[in-house]
Amino acid sequence: MSDKFEVVGTSERKVDGLALITGRPVFAGDLDLPHTLHLALLASPHAHARIRRIDAGGAARLPGVALVLTHENTPSLRFTTAGQGYPEPSPYDARMFDSKVRFVGDRVAVVAAESPRLAREALSLIAVDYEVLPAALSLDAALAPGAPVIHDEADAEGIWDAPHNLAAALDVAVGDTPAAFAECVAVVETTCETQYAQHAPLETHVCQSYLDDNGRLVLYTSTQVPFHLRRIVARILDLPIHRIRVVKPRIGGGFGVKQEVLLEDVCALVTMRTGRPARWEYTRSEEFVSARTRHPFRIRVKVGAREDGVLHAIEMDAIQNTGAYGTHSLTVLSNAGSKTLPLYNKAPHLRFTGRSVYTNLPVGGAYRGYGGTQASFPLETALDRLAERLGLDPVELRRRNHIGSGETSPIFAEMGEGREGVPMIIKSCAIPECLNAGMEAFGWAHKRARPRDTGPVRRGVGMSLHMQGSGIPLIDMGAATIKMNDDGSFHLLIGATDLGTGSDTILGQIAAEVLGVRLEQIVVYSSDTDFTPFDTGAYASSTTYVTGKAVERAAREVEEQIRRVAAVMLQTEAGAVQLGDGRVIAPDGRSVTLAEVCTRAYYGADQFQIGATASCVPEESPPPFMASFAEVAVDVETGQVRVLDYVAAVDCGTPINPRMAEGQVEGAVANGIGYALTEEYLFTPGGKVRNADLSRYKIPRTLDLPPIRVILVDSYEPTGPMGAKSIAEIGINGPAPSIANAIYHATGVRLARTPFTPERVWRALREAGIG
Amino acid sequence: MSDKFEVVGTSERKVDGLALITGRPVFAGDLDLPHTLHLALLASPHAHARIRRIDAGGAARLPGVALVLTHENTPSLRFTTAGQGYPEPSPYDARMFDSKVRFVGDRVAVVAAESPRLAREALSLIAVDYEVLPAALSLDAALAPGAPVIHDEADAEGIWDAPHNLAAALDVAVGDTPAAFAECVAVVETTCETQYAQHAPLETHVCQSYLDDNGRLVLYTSTQVPFHLRRIVARILDLPIHRIRVVKPRIGGGFGVKQEVLLEDVCALVTMRTGRPARWEYTRSEEFVSARTRHPFRIRVKVGAREDGVLHAIEMDAIQNTGAYGTHSLTVLSNAGSKTLPLYNKAPHLRFTGRSVYTNLPVGGAYRGYGGTQASFPLETALDRLAERLGLDPVELRRRNHIGSGETSPIFAEMGEGREGVPMIIKSCAIPECLNAGMEAFGWAHKRARPRDTGPVRRGVGMSLHMQGSGIPLIDMGAATIKMNDDGSFHLLIGATDLGTGSDTILGQIAAEVLGVRLEQIVVYSSDTDFTPFDTGAYASSTTYVTGKAVERAAREVEEQIRRVAAVMLQTEAGAVQLGDGRVIAPDGRSVTLAEVCTRAYYGADQFQIGATASCVPEESPPPFMASFAEVAVDVETGQVRVLDYVAAVDCGTPINPRMAEGQVEGAVANGIGYALTEEYLFTPGGKVRNADLSRYKIPRTLDLPPIRVILVDSYEPTGPMGAKSIAEIGINGPAPSIANAIYHATGVRLARTPFTPERVWRALREAGIG
Repeated sequence: MSDKFEVVGTSERKVDGLALITGRPVFAGDLDLPHTLHLALLASPHAHARIRRIDAGGAARLPGVALVLTHENTPSLRFTTAGQGYPEPSPYDARMFDSKVRFVGDRVAVVAAESPRLAREALSLIAVDYEVLPAALSLDAALAPGAPVIHDEADAEGIWDAPHNLAAALDVAVGDTPAAFAECVAVVETTCETQYAQHAPLETHVCQSYLDDNGRLVLYTSTQVPFHLRRIVARILDLPIHRIRVVKPRIGGGFGVKQEVLLEDVCALVTMRTGRPARWEYTRSEEFVSARTRHPFRIRVKVGAREDGVLHAIEMDAIQNTGAYGTHSLTVLSNAGSKTLPLYNKAPHLRFTGRSVYTNLPVGGAYRGYGGTQASFPLETALDRLAERLGLDPVELRRRNHIGSGETSPIFAEMGEGREGVPMIIKSCAIPECLNAGMEAFGWAHKRARPRDTGPVRRGVGMSLHMQGSGIPLIDMGAATIKMNDDGSFHLLIGATDLGTGSDTILGQIAAEVLGVRLEQIVVYSSDTDFTPFDTGAYASSTTYVTGKAVERAAREVEEQIRRVAAVMLQTEAGAVQLGDGRVIAPDGRSVTLAEVCTRAYYGADQFQIGATASCVPEESPPPFMASFAEVAVDVETGQVRVLDYVAAVDCGTPINPRMAEGQVEGAVANGIGYALTEEYLFTPGGKVRNADLSRYKIPRTLDLPPIRVILVDSYEPTGPMGAKSIAEIGINGPAPSIANAIYHATGVRLARTPFTPERVWRALREAGIG
Repeated sequence: MSDKFEVVGTSERKVDGLALITGRPVFAGDLDLPHTLHLALLASPHAHARIRRIDAGGAARLPGVALVLTHENTPSLRFTTAGQGYPEPSPYDARMFDSKVRFVGDRVAVVAAESPRLAREALSLIAVDYEVLPAALSLDAALAPGAPVIHDEADAEGIWDAPHNLAAALDVAVGDTPAAFAECVAVVETTCETQYAQHAPLETHVCQSYLDDNGRLVLYTSTQVPFHLRRIVARILDLPIHRIRVVKPRIGGGFGVKQEVLLEDVCALVTMRTGRPARWEYTRSEEFVSARTRHPFRIRVKVGAREDGVLHAIEMDAIQNTGAYGTHSLTVLSNAGSKTLPLYNKAPHLRFTGRSVYTNLPVGGAYRGYGGTQASFPLETALDRLAERLGLDPVELRRRNHIGSGETSPIFAEMGEGREGVPMIIKSCAIPECLNAGMEAFGWAHKRARPRDTGPVRRGVGMSLHMQGSGIPLIDMGAATIKMNDDGSFHLLIGATDLGTGSDTILGQIAAEVLGVRLEQIVVYSSDTDFTPFDTGAYASSTTYVTGKAVERAAREVEEQIRRVAAVMLQTEAGAVQLGDGRVIAPDGRSVTLAEVCTRAYYGADQFQIGATASCVPEESPPPFMASFAEVAVDVETGQVRVLDYVAAVDCGTPINPRMAEGQVEGAVANGIGYALTEEYLFTPGGKVRNADLSRYKIPRTLDLPPIRVILVDSYEPTGPMGAKSIAEIGINGPAPSIANAIYHATGVRLARTPFTPERVWRALREAGIG
């Protein structure tokens, strides 16, 4: 489809590439303000405790200490750090500081001092008298009768179920699954567990705050959600929203964790109290412990098929560990079902049940994949078992059951995709092409047919099928402002948040496409709550689809204005002219340049500023799809799993910038391979993270990774900008199930817990009598 | 009229007042960038010379010198520094550097070095071999046969008449003045001369330039015309406009002189050549000599009246000294007629002739009053003579002749006010009220009737009547962008240029009025070519009238959007609701807050960014009017004139902010008193300014000034925002003629040359046998 475009579909360089590659001071931490106060965190050493007394006097008296903040001198308002739409679906269960701590790493106090060193030194002078409470350090412990109640404070909104440590619960039923399973020829049931994992952005959370010349508070911060952040900080500090400006400079990675308001409330308070700039940057260890994590899940999946290999019933029961606070608990829980079950819409009987459970462990949050990753593992391994039971190739089982164009799933309506009563109809679906292209590139038939290895290193192949969404319908919103210059160039102002993904570039390409200019003619600026229009932020794979559509709309409005001016200049009709190559061309070939058009609009007749602002709120969340293929080698003597080859064939609609789209998938697959094989939080018996650093928490390096081959399958989403859907998250869902299925193919052993570390694999092989 | 408004008509504090009064670093010179190169100017010591050879080697070799710019290594493109609309009416007679210098102070070279001191030191190492040419150091010398030709280079556009040193010429005739004068019972003819004068802004010209992180050129500069400046610098440096960003921070006074592009081209070139920030700030002495001045004029006025005291014919012949370059030559010349003659539209026979003459003297430019000031002096003193000849009170003569509501003047159409063939009709004119209110407050009748003093100090009173414009019709353009926040506040982004006048505040008041909120709810930002919409800039008394109208329009569009959202919330019609006090109120009294409205627009149904951009290009330039009254005391022994009392009664339509409007008039009157009494450039025989500093160029201090009583007369201009016209310039036109007429009333001596210094007055008194 992309041959009809000039700029879209081209692998343009990043518009911010020069600044990034030349090491310009473009990140939040690079801001160098005089008289800055540096902040340091006193984190709880206990998993669960009440603060009987806190004596900050010693710290406060240390020369160079400006302020010590504790629960005794800070606002006590309850809020959520989740950075979601308003009203937030996450419970208001957090305070800036509280008299109770709920996990090892919870905020106890923050010191603001003249230097980072002084601030850290002062921490040791804060005397805290804790009443240590029994802690719930696992799902089972939190759910057991008589378990410690983690949020025993009042829940005014009745959102969470304090006595049972439940942060959220869900039950969605379509049809009658128990009866349906009785009608199946094959039923498989499996329970899987997933681990705590880290986003590990290169740049940890960092915020700098200061008062501008007019006394307004500026937050210069590494965030995915500038406008949500502005609203939340305003509420916590009881400031009018317009007294706050949030600037999002370049970001060194987000992956969901920068959707959270973790530093900004405290920085803001320090600046408001002292009048001085404040700077707070998480250390890598704090990023692991005190920021957010991927929610661990325990998920039971039951799938049943009839004789023809068509699914008849699916049950999914998900228990989510949300840690000490319920940020994103409901929505990640919900997405575990809504980003997996619609894929197999041939099954008429469905049930999704879910509970989100508080524990005295680190806090879950938004993380690329957002429940879809966790639930894909049990569902796609269950289907692998089912295929075997039915004697079908796993690809063939998917072929018989996947959703297709013109179809819907009851889950879309039941779990909140689309307007009430109007289920989303899939308008673009290239799953068959993804399966075919992926199989062929991977050599699936040949590799699958290989006899099982018997030596110490055993190769095997596995596959899985995936979907994600493109933004959150009726909640996400993007907007764009375009302003024309008298050289025929344009300023594109967007509230959307480029986290390093290249979204600024993609949005510029969409504008350039409509306006018939090269990308260089578009000066892209994001994001700054003073200048850029409201945008819900970068999450839920929304930027290309949602903000991209807003950019397209704004550009179309500007195009119309240009046509009007040019038609007068060319003495023809506005509808008759064409934009292209920086010109407006009449049917007879005469043309004017865009520079001439804008110069006329500035200085000639009918003077006006050519420009427009447009918004987009999606009514649907068209899923991208992906067929994932992995080849592994399992060393049965050591338990080590190596991924030898990986193919991801993705239907993301029109790839606006193919190279960057491929990069998104490559990064997500690498991220998913780490999640599948090596990454996990290890805890002491007291609930303290044992490996809160990059030397002991193992993310894959380039050399640990296989070739990751990305195939962008041609499709066109009619509701998307230039036919685009999304691509940022889906790639991460593939590795865990594809690799688990490949390990089974290699060894005959099923793994039900991520990550597949050598120790865990070795034990499973031993239990199966292998190696 | 202003009692129908809530915020408009209120003397709100300046929105930037806190930053200004607390000394925040808000001016262009306050920017403190590392690795900045400092620039220093080598100015011509000769009034007219060719540069035979320039050896910059010694300077360039001085350690710490980065760059020496001369005509040998800089772009040779011709341009105008005038910063006017496009295409500029001023001739393209300037170059960045030229091989010929045309006045003492003309650019010869600029050094960029590590410190200001080094840069100045390096200047002395530049060896220039001049071929000194004969110079034309007065109007007569430049107009004499065989005069040195100042611009002997080609004039491709044929704009200027090189052999005759003419930069511009005009001849506008209505009716038959020679025949008409023959029909008059009284005819007066007078020729007056006005002097070179200085704007003397507190902040001299200052520009800082740097490359941003994306390699774009940023000009952070004290300018009245950010968008014109961007266009002009782009052209000189052959850069695309979108590679340049012009930021106008707070400005320490402009008065027209910051309409000129004087430093920015060189700063930009230094930054582009070196990659480093550059800083150039005129010294006070350079500001006097190398910046711009008020064009001196010699003007002959002939007025004739019939028996009834109604004017029958007016002739004005103006010769303007534009100095070495023709910036604003045509337009200031034209305004000498168009901002004075329409005032007396009872005269059916009019002729205006004008010539702008190049001399080897400092360069004229835009200066508050802009020709109107210079021409008011001869016209209003001529009318004083005519009143005496007719035996009429000067006020009565004006009453019989001034323009009124519903009337027009042929001058409006002939001299470019309004669309061709559509003469402007005056829609608001409170001249009678200004005359009455001014007379009464001043005590005119009583003071005028006093017998002439005979002692050494003689008191007298004089008056004059004035008009100015409100922007330039069909040339000026303003635009405004408004963006709503979810606390019910608004961002107002304007390209208009607050020079310290308070226009940001006034524009905020207009938005607040429409949107029914307090001024605090409007966050005003101006101006930045990246973010604020196109605006031609602050000149010609345009900001309130032109940009104010754009703000009103944008606010009305936003109001409509608010009504639409609120009507749904209140279950009523959009047309039925009212905005006020930060709420939207239904007919039955139910209401929602603006915060609720925007929160719904952000997060609820029909999500969109409430906001709008609107432009305004005025079709008319409705004149403000002013009656001016001065009382003086003339010491006939010393020639010293003291102003004892001053009343300015002004019709500016609705004063949006009365205190600031009064401040504008007070400042302009003070400026005009300096122009009338003390301020003038003194020259050596070689054409060098002898008093280029504030100790020898005498601007009045507070203690030198009389009480200046400003009366804002109630009127309402239907084409203006909330009924407003303009007020920035008109005040300066009054003092010279009112004081001259008062001196005559006191002494019987007419002065025909400004300023009325003690020496000049003493000589005139002696010639008249007085003292």
